[in-house]
Amino acid sequence: MADTLISVDLSESPHTNEAVHNRWHPDIPIAVWVEPGDDFKIETYDWTGGQIKNDDDAADVRDVELEQVHYLSGPIGVKGAEPGDLLKVHILDIGAKEEMNWGFNGFFSKQNGGGFLTDHFPEAQKSIWDFHGMFTSSRHVPGVKYAGLIHPGLIGCLPDRKMLDMWNSREKALVDTDPGRVPPLAALPDTQSAHMGKLTGDEKMKAASEAARTVPPREHGGNCDIKDLSRGATCYFPVYVDGAGLSMGDLHFSQGDGEITFCGAIEMAGWLHIQVELVKGGMEKYGIKNPIFKPSPITPKYDDYLIFEGISVDESGHQHYLDVHVAYRQACLNAIEYLKKFGYTGAQAYAILGTAPVQGHISGVVDIPNACATLWLPNEIFEFDIMPGSDGPTKHLDGSVDIPLAPDL
Amino acid sequence: MADTLISVDLSESPHTNEAVHNRWHPDIPIAVWVEPGDDFKIETYDWTGGQIKNDDDAADVRDVELEQVHYLSGPIGVKGAEPGDLLKVHILDIGAKEEMNWGFNGFFSKQNGGGFLTDHFPEAQKSIWDFHGMFTSSRHVPGVKYAGLIHPGLIGCLPDRKMLDMWNSREKALVDTDPGRVPPLAALPDTQSAHMGKLTGDEKMKAASEAARTVPPREHGGNCDIKDLSRGATCYFPVYVDGAGLSMGDLHFSQGDGEITFCGAIEMAGWLHIQVELVKGGMEKYGIKNPIFKPSPITPKYDDYLIFEGISVDESGHQHYLDVHVAYRQACLNAIEYLKKFGYTGAQAYAILGTAPVQGHISGVVDIPNACATLWLPNEIFEFDIMPGSDGPTKHLDGSVDIPLAPDL
Amino acid sequence: MADTLISVDLSESPHTNEAVHNRWHPDIPIAVWVEPGDDFKIETYDWTGGQIKNDDDAADVRDVELEQVHYLSGPIGVKGAEPGDLLKVHILDIGAKEEMNWGFNGFFSKQNGGGFLTDHFPEAQKSIWDFHGMFTSSRHVPGVKYAGLIHPGLIGCLPDRKMLDMWNSREKALVDTDPGRVPPLAALPDTQSAHMGKLTGDEKMKAASEAARTVPPREHGGNCDIKDLSRGATCYFPVYVDGAGLSMGDLHFSQGDGEITFCGAIEMAGWLHIQVELVKGGMEKYGIKNPIFKPSPITPKYDDYLIFEGISVDESGHQHYLDVHVAYRQACLNAIEYLKKFGYTGAQAYAILGTAPVQGHISGVVDIPNACATLWLPNEIFEFDIMPGSDGPTKHLDGSVDIPLAPDL
Amino acid sequence: MADTLISVDLSESPHTNEAVHNRWHPDIPIAVWVEPGDDFKIETYDWTGGQIKNDDDAADVRDVELEQVHYLSGPIGVKGAEPGDLLKVHILDIGAKEEMNWGFNGFFSKQNGGGFLTDHFPEAQKSIWDFHGMFTSSRHVPGVKYAGLIHPGLIGCLPDRKMLDMWNSREKALVDTDPGRVPPLAALPDTQSAHMGKLTGDEKMKAASEAARTVPPREHGGNCDIKDLSRGATCYFPVYVDGAGLSMGDLHFSQGDGEITFCGAIEMAGWLHIQVELVKGGMEKYGIKNPIFKPSPITPKYDDYLIFEGISVDESGHQHYLDVHVAYRQACLNAIEYLKKFGYTGAQAYAILGTAPVQGHISGVVDIPNACATLWLPNEIFEFDIMPGSDGPTKHLDGSVDIPLAPDL
Repeated sequence: MADTLISVDLSESPHTNEAVHNRWHPDIPIAVWVEPGDDFKIETYDWTGGQIKNDDDAADVRDVELEQVHYLSGPIGVKGAEPGDLLKVHILDIGAKEEMNWGFNGFFSKQNGGGFLTDHFPEAQKSIWDFHGMFTSSRHVPGVKYAGLIHPGLIGCLPDRKMLDMWNSREKALVDTDPGRVPPLAALPDTQSAHMGKLTGDEKMKAASEAARTVPPREHGGNCDIKDLSRGATCYFPVYVDGAGLSMGDLHFSQGDGEITFCGAIEMAGWLHIQVELVKGGMEKYGIKNPIFKPSPITPKYDDYLIFEGISVDESGHQHYLDVHVAYRQACLNAIEYLKKFGYTGAQAYAILGTAPVQGHISGVVDIPNACATLWLPNEIFEFDIMPGSDGPTKHLDGSVDIPLAPDL
Repeated sequence: MADTLISVDLSESPHTNEAVHNRWHPDIPIAVWVEPGDDFKIETYDWTGGQIKNDDDAADVRDVELEQVHYLSGPIGVKGAEPGDLLKVHILDIGAKEEMNWGFNGFFSKQNGGGFLTDHFPEAQKSIWDFHGMFTSSRHVPGVKYAGLIHPGLIGCLPDRKMLDMWNSREKALVDTDPGRVPPLAALPDTQSAHMGKLTGDEKMKAASEAARTVPPREHGGNCDIKDLSRGATCYFPVYVDGAGLSMGDLHFSQGDGEITFCGAIEMAGWLHIQVELVKGGMEKYGIKNPIFKPSPITPKYDDYLIFEGISVDESGHQHYLDVHVAYRQACLNAIEYLKKFGYTGAQAYAILGTAPVQGHISGVVDIPNACATLWLPNEIFEFDIMPGSDGPTKHLDGSVDIPLAPDL
Repeated sequence: MADTLISVDLSESPHTNEAVHNRWHPDIPIAVWVEPGDDFKIETYDWTGGQIKNDDDAADVRDVELEQVHYLSGPIGVKGAEPGDLLKVHILDIGAKEEMNWGFNGFFSKQNGGGFLTDHFPEAQKSIWDFHGMFTSSRHVPGVKYAGLIHPGLIGCLPDRKMLDMWNSREKALVDTDPGRVPPLAALPDTQSAHMGKLTGDEKMKAASEAARTVPPREHGGNCDIKDLSRGATCYFPVYVDGAGLSMGDLHFSQGDGEITFCGAIEMAGWLHIQVELVKGGMEKYGIKNPIFKPSPITPKYDDYLIFEGISVDESGHQHYLDVHVAYRQACLNAIEYLKKFGYTGAQAYAILGTAPVQGHISGVVDIPNACATLWLPNEIFEFDIMPGSDGPTKHLDGSVDIPLAPDL
Repeated sequence: MADTLISVDLSESPHTNEAVHNRWHPDIPIAVWVEPGDDFKIETYDWTGGQIKNDDDAADVRDVELEQVHYLSGPIGVKGAEPGDLLKVHILDIGAKEEMNWGFNGFFSKQNGGGFLTDHFPEAQKSIWDFHGMFTSSRHVPGVKYAGLIHPGLIGCLPDRKMLDMWNSREKALVDTDPGRVPPLAALPDTQSAHMGKLTGDEKMKAASEAARTVPPREHGGNCDIKDLSRGATCYFPVYVDGAGLSMGDLHFSQGDGEITFCGAIEMAGWLHIQVELVKGGMEKYGIKNPIFKPSPITPKYDDYLIFEGISVDESGHQHYLDVHVAYRQACLNAIEYLKKFGYTGAQAYAILGTAPVQGHISGVVDIPNACATLWLPNEIFEFDIMPGSDGPTKHLDGSVDIPLAPDL
């Protein structure tokens, strides 16, 4: 058996665990060291560190403290890793912690970060997804069941000082374009609830005051939320510091392209079994700036799709210029309207798009002024037929069940 | 054998063909009528109407007259079709015209529309792709060969007056935000080179003066350039006018998600074999605004990918806010840099991304401020191994062949 | 366009065509010569040379003259090919002849060769399958429609004298074990209806008297009836004579593993577009006795299966020893019984198993005394749901249509 | 978490465990009862009950006592199940026992049962396969690595008396055709090492004396060794006794079609997580004699194959009549010869065919006198390219490592 190098105790605060951190900074000490070629297990908290409960009340999603996120396990030091190398990470397996055999999906309140469709779903809602072996279903969203495409939403190596400074500089410049905006345009360094691994006292506070938040994906990978970087995948990460300093967390049992519900996929605590190797000097050899990866040979075969199109004209009829973000939002809204014809509430349909292995494709980006995006909805996740027919759709759900909502206070 | 209802003669100007048009307008007369359930063949010009030649000189791409595009075959009237119906189109097959067994891909000059990466490839270039049965290869891009994922880049039904007015109104409003821009933000109605099917004289000029250009995708589908709407697919189109008025063209032998080279995919003349049916009242029954479709059971199985990530920080290091367009551009540029390590020129790599069945996924759109997009490059199209290894890449191309370039005049 | 090197005129007897033959013999003269690297087209008759008509009477299947089969196009000489080489054949495309846009499937009378289930379907029956672009359906078998997995049932190179002698010797030895058997255990050389390409007169009769029939697959490939050796595949054939002498025919629009109906798949006339190359000395280099091949990247994606098991206990309850043939027959019979519950007649179900892209797997061959075989039935070819449910099956067919039967005379 | 209803202690003899048995008999008492709809876990021994060790000595494979096999966990009673029902079993997940994170593959001595190719590999050999998360590799077979297609080789419900009598009767009749044969044609009831669950004393001995051995697959399923009945699959089993009495075991981490090495696949101890439901009266409703199943949506995507053909002419050149068993043996031998060209020993190649997810297809069974079978070898399991090329194969293995062999005593 592979050794578990980092354990987490879900009954304890992640802040008590020195092998966990929730910021990016080159001074965070390596938690454990391994050799190239080693394979081992790493446990992780869910991204919120246990703030969300398995119940039918969305108040915890409404009241979540986002300064805490994301709790990552690491950094793992790989002996011999040097800046400019590529760290090859083979994700051998991922699973849920025995004591938390469920996950959650939520929509944040528009007042607390919102989500991709926050104008349509402005208040906090939460669905709970139970795991049945490799499958999941929800008491809040009847009629769907899917095999998990389990993946870490967040994985990458520590930045060096130069990279960190660049991140902070460009993100601050963005925030400065609209400094009073709520929510802000980016999450700048913030010492509140920062957890810097083994760092304590002044060292911790100094590092936390300049550490990058874990929210966005960046050059090192980080919070990419790429559903296809799943168990079985092999990823090549840029290395910026000696030892690489690989950290990971934010496990998802399943997610759709875009993670449009923001909170997020089906979020879970769990473990990863990984193997690490080095490609010396690989960044230069292969011209690598961002991570590249080969997806897993084991992914759910949901390849019978119904595809929805969207263009970059927004809900109010306003014309945008080649804006894929707007186009994908339209494709998502089109899919939600469609699913409502079969009896789903809008919130349930939204949750399906956020959690099922839907694909979001950038289909056309040059035909001015409209970008075209497509949302690929897998038919096989539904217990009933969702293809169009001449008789029109059948309502398979009677509306008696919906996703709990917690009104803004 | 299914009858060929619309024929095109590639040696004649498309303007001589009354069953061809290059604008959208409700007054374009139906060219041929069919019954629901009928299957038949339709021939089409390439999108430029034959302006591009099979040679090694990109001057024709540089000098292309874009007011002509796209030459569509139709409109086809379906008896009994009424506004509010869905027109179900089963694409039974697509092929090249015997006398034009090749296609072209090009980059427009930045002065003439450019493309997704026009700042990196500002001058006109052209590659020719020969068809070998179901496969294609190019004398200008050695080392790759792929099976065609043949599809119509452009297909949809005639708008009614109200829809047309809305299109014109919103696109003009966009242009008016920066009226002097070159190129303009949208292609507004323009009578130059307009071809309105059977319309002639004043009727033609009046309609052309208000007809929508075919450039962008819109509610009816149109120029979606969705590679997966390929032969074997079944699509459901909104109907706005009596008889539906289905038109199609802009055939592609193969294309990557985004059609990033703009000119475009592997562009071809050819024929489609289709069958039409009606879902009466289907728009309301299923809540349809844009077309939906089920992809084909026959598509090339290129499912072993190397995936490149991109985030919404542009080439100059500037931070954009959740901009998928910027993120996908970075993923494309990352892939191009990678392929250059194997000996491709940048232009060849760009052409591969534009023509091969690459996928472009909207991977993350909620993690402020960075969108994350991924470009999926199919390994199996290459004649050599492109996976990273510890020895670094091998240059398989010696640079002796490149894609012809025509400098701006 | 690739040149058509061998043409066939379906209105003429194949015996008038010197580039056609229906026996294997090293003395059959090369019909056309090509260079390694060439790609070209070859037309073929259907395997019976046009004996079966598009009508609703199975008398032609009952009365077919099997001494005529199979009409092959060739032999094609490849310059430079020598014994011991491998001939690499890339099947670039296959299609139907314009003037015969349909195919046939039949069961032979038990008195004329029968088929895999001849004890259950002892009399001649015939179904006609119309081609709709890449798809097929039959007026005799409602409720199914599938995309073609088009392939040559028969393809291979000429044997040399030594190989021919070995074939004749071993097959005669088999027949001699039960010389009076009807039908015989093998089809030995027979001059009746032999067609030896360009050979005439005494040369023809001498060669025909010792030429191998085309019925079985042998070391050179030949009548393998492998559905996966389809358009897009690349096959490596052993070469026994100078010039290789490649011939092919017996095109199938679609077929299930085993070609259990014997007559056979969906049989068609048509054309192949192929490219040939040589691997010099490849037989020794790679230890090749029988052909090997890489299947096509373009095959119908019917991968949602219902799987039936069979074991080597026959219909009468008799126990056989690790007999896969018996086990697969049971799996087929089990599938037929199942489909009958949905309203199909046994003959219709049998025809589906013979023509649809069903898989037949050798699942277990070591667990004495029972072999276990599985038949994989693709759900997606049916217009209705065939999965089991708690309510039991729905009869979707009312029995008003069946496959025409011609009683034995 | 699902409860573990049957646990096994690998350090104890399976004969000490009352919820384990190694024979089929209606009198074996139900070990645990569940309700329809329940999901739960079941642990199992490896099929030999721990006789094979993780070392480099094949003596244990040579000396294995086959009267012990197969140790099954069960019978599980499902409340309300009655003869004639179908028991729907959803395999939610399968995994290895933490304390045995490896499996074994072996060839039996020809004197002890042999295997599919026992004439070529007549002595006992053993390879050990380590599990790395979802993947496996072997120190005895370099250069290959594959994701597991984990499945129970053996699963099914208890026979009733009538079924049992029929099994015994027909198998005895087969043995009686050659009663002195070594090994015998079938494994008849044998009290040696019989384990009858909770039965003891005279009851046990009486039942054991007439209980069916677990070796072959039969009507109830049983030892089908179908690799595709893997985790995620849904199977429908015939029910013969009240409560159904479902038992399972013989877990395989990975196996090729045919399980040609007999001992067998990659054999493992482990656990299954399953859910059971009833289709009342389902046998009659759906005409079911043998189990049917829907394969898993999660299986390794190894779909790039090199395919080997075999015909029913045996190694000595003897012609067999439509014998798929012989044809598949030839295809296997052809693949072994091919792999030897890359440096594998014959035994290593044989082990790969027995353990990797190779497909074995019944490609043609009607073209007298030759059956045609195909073996599909997945390219992606190899660390090097195995496709043929003009330069011939490269020896990637130097022969320094082979599979341990234990000579017959």
